[in-house]
Amino acid sequence: MTNVTVTTYKECIDACIRCMNVCNTSYVSSLKGLDIFELRECLRLDRECADLCAMAVQAMTRNSPFVAEICELVAKACDVCAEECMKHPHEHCQECVSVCQECARVCRSMLVAA
Amino acid sequence: MTNVTVTTYKECIDACIRCMNVCNTSYVSSLKGLDIFELRECLRLDRECADLCAMAVQAMTRNSPFVAEICELVAKACDVCAEECMKHPHEHCQECVSVCQECARVCRSMLVAA
Amino acid sequence: MTNVTVTTYKECIDACIRCMNVCNTSYVSSLKGLDIFELRECLRLDRECADLCAMAVQAMTRNSPFVAEICELVAKACDVCAEECMKHPHEHCQECVSVCQECARVCRSMLVAA
Amino acid sequence: MTNVTVTTYKECIDACIRCMNVCNTSYVSSLKGLDIFELRECLRLDRECADLCAMAVQAMTRNSPFVAEICELVAKACDVCAEECMKHPHEHCQECVSVCQECARVCRSMLVAA
Repeated sequence: MTNVTVTTYKECIDACIRCMNVCNTSYVSSLKGLDIFELRECLRLDRECADLCAMAVQAMTRNSPFVAEICELVAKACDVCAEECMKHPHEHCQECVSVCQECARVCRSMLVAA
Repeated sequence: MTNVTVTTYKECIDACIRCMNVCNTSYVSSLKGLDIFELRECLRLDRECADLCAMAVQAMTRNSPFVAEICELVAKACDVCAEECMKHPHEHCQECVSVCQECARVCRSMLVAA
Repeated sequence: MTNVTVTTYKECIDACIRCMNVCNTSYVSSLKGLDIFELRECLRLDRECADLCAMAVQAMTRNSPFVAEICELVAKACDVCAEECMKHPHEHCQECVSVCQECARVCRSMLVAA
Repeated sequence: MTNVTVTTYKECIDACIRCMNVCNTSYVSSLKGLDIFELRECLRLDRECADLCAMAVQAMTRNSPFVAEICELVAKACDVCAEECMKHPHEHCQECVSVCQECARVCRSMLVAA
């Protein structure tokens, strides 16, 4: 008997949708700002991360045989994106940090549960 | 002054997520069934429709300049998918019908509102 | 009897692959440059266009029932991307212009041929 | 000093495009055949593999920071797809086997070279 929290597909899908949403919103904000030069790596990683989250959502809803590998990839992308966004004080970057970290955590806890 | 219901991105994103989810679930059920031969066109259209919904969700969350065209395309795919699923009594097909029809309606009402 | 050049899937797939490639290359160049602020709309449209081209390539290779609508959407995105890139003297922008215009032309000639 | 063949992005992009193409063609053939029930796992994996190849092509052309992980995922999907297709005598399945195996090899040799 363990007290490990089992993360279900449903939770992981929700975390990925939220992460895709927040990353894309941050991408749009970065694109519009006067300080786009400082945020260029953020906006690049936001889009990379959002694309991978979207792919993961699709993969989970169709029960892809590669869900584990895809979620591991998403967790990695979330780590890298959060690390970059951490350098910037912008509200949209800070929101990215917390949402990416949460998404990475959920993806990894699902892997453990699987 | 009109009483047109304005469909927001938020509503349309939710409708597309739900449609992607139900189409992919139906795809998985069709793949597993003994009557896959009868459902082959269903499973093909389920995947096409789910892919387009996923793309639309992404496009809306990043405020793509092509949201209108993409939502029109999703509405069309939903129509075609619903029409095919209508021919089959399976519960997952019938759920596809109602969810695709609703998604097509929401996509089109957003276009009108835009 | 006509002398219309019939554009085949093969030609259209090749044009879309080339366009995706050039748009993504231009996106990367725009991201790296010191004048990213001036190129922000370019880099946004490069990615939108590349994503749609990639989707079209996939759709054509799996004979999607929505190829016509998808190619029409790609042609539209190519037009918009070319129009924006035209404003910039950068070599990667000018290459985008010609490749997007060619891709739009091929997508439309395939529609006529269909 | 080694005699390792260095695989470039260009070679890997070409291998993934070819694999996406052949997998999607096999998917379409499987969908149309009378023996779709026997080929159901093939057609499922063909689509999974084609989707991942398409994502890899896009990722390489935009120089994604996650190219290594994505190519590793593609190689895995190619292995699984080839293993399933191997069970079937159909020409389109046999072509999938050789093209998937080649794509997996190229993806892995690029990883070594990186």
